[in-house]
Amino acid sequence: MKQEKGGTMEKSLSTDRTRLRRLPDRGSHDRDAIHRILDEALVCHVGFEAEGQPYVIPTLYGRVGDHLYLHGSAASRMLGRLEKGIPVCVTVTLLDGLVLARSAFHHSVNYRSVVVLGRAELVASEGEKLLALRAISEHVVPGRWAEVREPNEREMRVTSVLRIPLLEASAKVRVGPPKDDEEDLSIPVWAGVLPLETLPGEPVPDETVKQTAPVPGYVRGYRRPR
Amino acid sequence: MKQEKGGTMEKSLSTDRTRLRRLPDRGSHDRDAIHRILDEALVCHVGFEAEGQPYVIPTLYGRVGDHLYLHGSAASRMLGRLEKGIPVCVTVTLLDGLVLARSAFHHSVNYRSVVVLGRAELVASEGEKLLALRAISEHVVPGRWAEVREPNEREMRVTSVLRIPLLEASAKVRVGPPKDDEEDLSIPVWAGVLPLETLPGEPVPDETVKQTAPVPGYVRGYRRPR
Repeated sequence: MKQEKGGTMEKSLSTDRTRLRRLPDRGSHDRDAIHRILDEALVCHVGFEAEGQPYVIPTLYGRVGDHLYLHGSAASRMLGRLEKGIPVCVTVTLLDGLVLARSAFHHSVNYRSVVVLGRAELVASEGEKLLALRAISEHVVPGRWAEVREPNEREMRVTSVLRIPLLEASAKVRVGPPKDDEEDLSIPVWAGVLPLETLPGEPVPDETVKQTAPVPGYVRGYRRPR
Repeated sequence: MKQEKGGTMEKSLSTDRTRLRRLPDRGSHDRDAIHRILDEALVCHVGFEAEGQPYVIPTLYGRVGDHLYLHGSAASRMLGRLEKGIPVCVTVTLLDGLVLARSAFHHSVNYRSVVVLGRAELVASEGEKLLALRAISEHVVPGRWAEVREPNEREMRVTSVLRIPLLEASAKVRVGPPKDDEEDLSIPVWAGVLPLETLPGEPVPDETVKQTAPVPGYVRGYRRPR
């Protein structure tokens, strides 16, 4: 991805609605950049309206090609609304660092975010539903699905899966150092970037039963893909 | 905050709209729990509607008592919409860990989230505007504001600040180990929680000018409040 130092850029998959007007659009339709951000982030924030009130709800997701998948209880209010095909917005944000300038005004954050607009469809086919659940699981903890018990008939029945096509999406990225005004460069305060990263701590074994299985490599060496 | 092991709980500041129906409501109106989550998180996701389409946009924020403050360019499309007083939802999410169960179905995440519903008001008074900008700065990097150049008249003019009262808000929290079905406990796969935390890396000095100031303590020892 071409990136400007200390600047914001944007990538989009089509349409005027997903282009944020105040920022230059470089490399629109950059599907790969959008996919990479979606694949690295863990949680998305889903926006929808109900009775004139917007709601924003965090949830896990998975991506298969040009589709996002959401899942949850079949009794979920959010999924119940979304499966009616109302307009939805799915946003993911990776916070990469704090940008400390010499002036309060030029403080910023480095981040990568994707905004997806569309409508969700309920996944009816059992085959696609299972693939989607596997994709969500593998998105969160790659390697886990093969080791655990797959969903049984009852669990599949009480789980809803929704599919959102990645037709309208845009990415916004800020990278690099602070951009101070020339006349502020002599202010004798440290300036730069404090990188931030989401990192795993020590795995905490469930003590419900005595465990003999070792901590798996995909847990021990857990990292988000970059 | 009272917490159940391996369970989800909810705290709310008033109203039926902010209570998620599928989950038990323990300790409603727990203002402190809501404030703590808001104070620890860095980025919020702001949901609003424009021409029938919901949008969810990540942004920084600050809290002063029972108000959230958002800021941005006076030319920002989002702030321009919000200052009209349309319904808004502000959500923050802290992802605390991955919950690995013996069955795919019982996988989950530990998290703390707050959903705020309301309407934003444009902050007109210069005094409150400056206090809000200071609160946002101190929310992100406590200690920074006192060291940097404060906004000048032009910067204040091109910056909009919005205030959202914390009247309707709810917190949702999951903590603890996986909750497997009894009959799955003998499946010989490791189960437990992989904690996640957002941590700082090595500060990267801006090389625009040679810096003599040392990396400040509030950068070197940066941690979110818990």
